[in-house]
Formats: sequence, structure tokens, C-alpha cells
Amino acid sequence: MADSDSNITPIGKFGKFGLIDHLTNKFKAVNKSTVLGIGDDSAIIESGDMLTLISSDLLLEGIHFNLTYTPLKHLGYKAVIRAISDIYAMNGTPGQVIISIGVSARFAVEQLDELYEGISMACEKYGTDLAGGDTTSSLTGLTIGVTAAGFVERGNVARRDGAKPNDIICVTGDFGASFMGLQLLERERKIFKTHSGIQPDLSGYEYVIGRQLKPEFPSETLADLRKNSLQPSSMIDISDGLASDLLHICNASHTGCRIYSDKIPIDQETYRLAEEFRIDPLTAALNGGEDYELLFTLPLEMFEKIRKISSVKVIGHMTSPDFGKILVSDAGSETELTAQGWEKQE
Amino acid sequence: MADSDSNITPIGKFGKFGLIDHLTNKFKAVNKSTVLGIGDDSAIIESGDMLTLISSDLLLEGIHFNLTYTPLKHLGYKAVIRAISDIYAMNGTPGQVIISIGVSARFAVEQLDELYEGISMACEKYGTDLAGGDTTSSLTGLTIGVTAAGFVERGNVARRDGAKPNDIICVTGDFGASFMGLQLLERERKIFKTHSGIQPDLSGYEYVIGRQLKPEFPSETLADLRKNSLQPSSMIDISDGLASDLLHICNASHTGCRIYSDKIPIDQETYRLAEEFRIDPLTAALNGGEDYELLFTLPLEMFEKIRKISSVKVIGHMTSPDFGKILVSDAGSETELTAQGWEKQE
Repeated sequence: MADSDSNITPIGKFGKFGLIDHLTNKFKAVNKSTVLGIGDDSAIIESGDMLTLISSDLLLEGIHFNLTYTPLKHLGYKAVIRAISDIYAMNGTPGQVIISIGVSARFAVEQLDELYEGISMACEKYGTDLAGGDTTSSLTGLTIGVTAAGFVERGNVARRDGAKPNDIICVTGDFGASFMGLQLLERERKIFKTHSGIQPDLSGYEYVIGRQLKPEFPSETLADLRKNSLQPSSMIDISDGLASDLLHICNASHTGCRIYSDKIPIDQETYRLAEEFRIDPLTAALNGGEDYELLFTLPLEMFEKIRKISSVKVIGHMTSPDFGKILVSDAGSETELTAQGWEKQE
Repeated sequence: MADSDSNITPIGKFGKFGLIDHLTNKFKAVNKSTVLGIGDDSAIIESGDMLTLISSDLLLEGIHFNLTYTPLKHLGYKAVIRAISDIYAMNGTPGQVIISIGVSARFAVEQLDELYEGISMACEKYGTDLAGGDTTSSLTGLTIGVTAAGFVERGNVARRDGAKPNDIICVTGDFGASFMGLQLLERERKIFKTHSGIQPDLSGYEYVIGRQLKPEFPSETLADLRKNSLQPSSMIDISDGLASDLLHICNASHTGCRIYSDKIPIDQETYRLAEEFRIDPLTAALNGGEDYELLFTLPLEMFEKIRKISSVKVIGHMTSPDFGKILVSDAGSETELTAQGWEKQE
């Protein structure tokens, strides 16, 4: 567990219904669309002329997070980012999140308070309401179920299946940092476990650790695109990894693609740490995952317009499917892009 | 684990994205409101002039289900019932479910196929689309996150906070059966564990076991209410237990209540089994939970009209809050209604 102290309140103190009340009574709805939030069987969301978007995620202790080095506040924050990123990825605006947690008796109310403080901070920053949820006991640590809802105007929807050959492939941010942050945290955890006298040394790597523990989503880029009448032909949030998520777009759109390794944004810290770990930085960038950035395609004629938006980089273009899904190296050699599989998660 | 045989496909075979495709490729959207279902970042749901309802649940192995006696097909069915019952409880019509599962390596694809067959059967029976979801690995057995979405006309919403003093309290179905079914299954599991030669004897208790393993929701009653212009002043689905859920209504509506023990519907099998277990049948009915029935209130002047709907029983009436929340026994004595707490779930 992260920090625990002597002022511990056992979860049982509140009773089941008291606990969820306690955890959520500070949340106030800010979205006009939230007709009814916490405290009834369902949230009520008004859509008017818009389309409602709903997305759902499951976060499991030991798979999606390790509480040895993940402060619960950060975990709550990240859970919200993860859920709303799927709404943004449809070119939508998130309005509500519903969060259910399963929690074992080893947790204290103060720790859940921290979790919900992180949830609250992310909700506030991204203008999203906590609109429901539940708590239940668990035999096996912490489980978080997050559902996000949002809206999009019919004409603005950006799906995965709209990319066309020759569309340019655009990304926000940089890649592989969250993955390298995770490697660093895992290494220090193992050292701490075997030599408990040695304190973790994370200095000089604040950026990659921040990307892992407290990611943000580039929602302003979506606003910039709208302001410049740039409607993506396809879009996805990069959570599984740049390669995986680009392949999702190619498969849904029935296209090939061609991306250039020297165009893929990688932060200096990511480079440095990847070298230290003897990991190819490009592999980290392509397959690392948890970047919470946007990948989208635009018709070629938008190239000059998109170049003016500094948060966006063009990394290649779509092709007809017979050209395959190709990564072009700095030296000009071509390899087939592949996605990491389930196995890696185990 | 339930049944397993020699034709086992390890989950790793499909890769992460292959697995969810495999599990969901037979689902076809039937609701016009399902603009986009499985296969993108979010589901897209159209609401037109209606309000969108969203509800979310978390089901954990060892807490909400025990796979020793729960066939996975039944579990999938029940997961859907559990989620859509929250939509019905707002007087809405469920349209979509999104199901995410966390699953450990001890599961085979054939077992998940069974789970999704149950999901599919419930979706079909209740006219609901599977509109998304994900699979992830888990260290600790099976976790199911279910989100349901639906619609309700603005004027038809039945919330928890609309009950008034003198409103009559109505319920569907009968109570305590699911709880007694669980007790029976648990007893037989323990006998089987210590004396593995002894086969479970469940004959004569098909009803209570069915209520536990494959519950249905009285959605036709809602249709009957609408047909008869009976708009509930408040409504909730009974999943936590009749007492708990009635107290939820009282607390949200700021009312007291008065219910009569001889009016509470209890099936003969429930009676018989409760006596065998030396459990007070009324306690099982009030606090058992997982009944998946409806509890609602109606203005007193609707009494004659509601009496004509045979699936509905009147069990008492709301009062002003100073009269308390009272259970009147057959002999006429009064006790305070109490809810079971978190502790019991551990």
C-alpha cells in the first residue's frame, strides 16, 4: 500500500450505502446535461440534438496499476482520463463519469478518500460530472469500473473507419514516455523489495513518471481542430500503443499505412531511459501504450492547415490496403508494423 | 470451475483484440438508437427527444458469484438483468449494454463463449444491444463490469425522490426466493467439498434456485402501468433487499412508511426452505436481496386501478417522516424497518 497512517477508518464503519455517500457527497454536477446524477438507479443525461457517447473501462489491481508506487489520488485521476479519452476519441465532449469500485477490507476510508480526490480533480479539470456509481466489497484488492458519457454533434463524429488512402496521419504529444516511466517504477520497486534500505532514485525522470502516474489528455487540440474546421476522417485515442491503435484504424478503414520512424515524437527523457534499459526507444514509442494522445487522419489537402497547429505532428499517410502497413526507418528500409498481443499483458 | 472438457482453447490463442472480436462478432444491433455499437472507442446512442439513462455495475468472483455452482451462461444472463433492471427502475427502456471482463489464465475461450451466450440470450429477450466492451487479463479470477443505457420520456421518469405521504407502496413478484436459493446452493457446495461422493440434492427447490441463478425482470408490469396511465411517484428495483430499497425511497423522498408483513409476497418454496434452515421467512424476504423485482409508489387514488394488475401487490403506504419506517406484524405489533449493511457482504 502507499501511505497509511494511524488515523485509519475501517471501511465497515459507514455501511455499504454510507460509504458511497461519504465518497461522493462533495461532487456537484456542473453540466447542464446532467439531469440527475448520483443517488438514483441510473444517471439521466439529456442529449437534445446531439448523439450520446458511452464508454466503459475496467481497471484491476496488479494488471492496470500497482499500489506500491501508484498514489491513490493519481490512480483516481488516471481512471477518469482513461474513460474520457474514449469520448474525446470520437470527437466528443465528455459530460459524465460513473465509477464503481470493488475494495477489500485492507483499505481504509482515508485511502478511498484519496482515490476520490483524484477523481474529483480530473472531473473538475475536464469539466466532467461524477454522475453515479457504487461500492462493493472485494476479496482481492481494488477493482475500478469507469463508464464515461458524452456528446457529439452528428456531423462531427470521428470514427475509426473513415480513413482513406492518401489521408495524412497526425498525432499529438510524444510516445513511449509512460511505458518507460513504468519500467523505471517497476525497477525501483524490485530494488526496494530486495534491499529495503535503498530509497528509490527517480530524479531526472520526472517527465516520464508523470506521464505514467498522472497523464493528461490533449483536449485543447480537439478544440483547435474545430476552430480551424479540421474534421478528422478517423480518430482514436492511443492507449494500447501507437502501432496497435494505428492498426485499429487501418483495419476498420480497410487501408494500409506508411509511417516514418524519424517523424515519431519521442521525448529526450524517454530516449535516455530507454538506452539505460537497453530498450529500443522506437519500440517503446510504438508499443508502450498508455500515452493518452490522439491519433487521427485528415485529407491530404489539409496538410498546410494542420502544420499551423503546433501540438500536432504528421507522421505518415494512409495507403491502399495492398501496400501493407509499413514503418519506414531513418535509413529508408521498410518493415511491417505489428501490434503487441494479449500475452504481453499477462 | 463449472464444466470443462478436453476441447479447451487457451485465451492467449486469440490475442487481446482477437478475443473480444471472437466473443462479440455474433451480436447484431437491433435498436434504432444504436448508431454505432461494438468496435470503436465509444458506443453512439441517439436519444432524439428522450432522456438517456446510464447505469453501471461491477460483479466480482467470490463476492457476487461463485463459479462452483453458477454456470457461466447463467452468470452472463444475470449480469445483463442486473444492469438493465436499473434502467427499468427509472421507468425507462434499456437499449444497450456495454460489458467489460477481466479474466485470468485459468479460463478457456469455451467458458467465455458460454458467458457471452448467456449475455446474448438476455439481450435478445429484453431487446437490448451489446454495444461495446473490452477484455483484459486478471490475476484473480473473473470480474465483470456492466453498463446499461436506455431512454425514457421526460414525463415518465420515476425517480426515488417523488414519493408522498399516503402514496401506496406496490411490489411485483415475491421475495426472499433468490436468497434462499443461494443458501441452498452454498450448503450443497460445502457438503460436496467435504464429502465429494455426495451429489447435490436440489430437487423440489427448482423455483428458488432459478430465482438465484437465472432471474428475470418484470418488464411487462411497466408496460401494464403505462397502458393504464399509472405513473409511479417513485420507483426502484429491488436488488439490495426489500427493506433496504424501500428505505432508499423513504430517505430520498423524505417520508416514512408503513408496510404489513402479511402482505409481503413469499413463495411456498421459500417458506419451506427457510424453515429447514431455521431462518425467519420474513427476514429472508425483507433482507435477502437479488430479487430483481420492482418497488414503486402511487397516489392513493390509483388504488382501485392498480388492484386490477395481477402482477402487482400493495404492501403498505408512505407516511409523513415523523411516523418512522414501520413494519406491522401479523399480530399488529410494530417494529422499525432496518437495512442490512456492508458487513454482511464480506
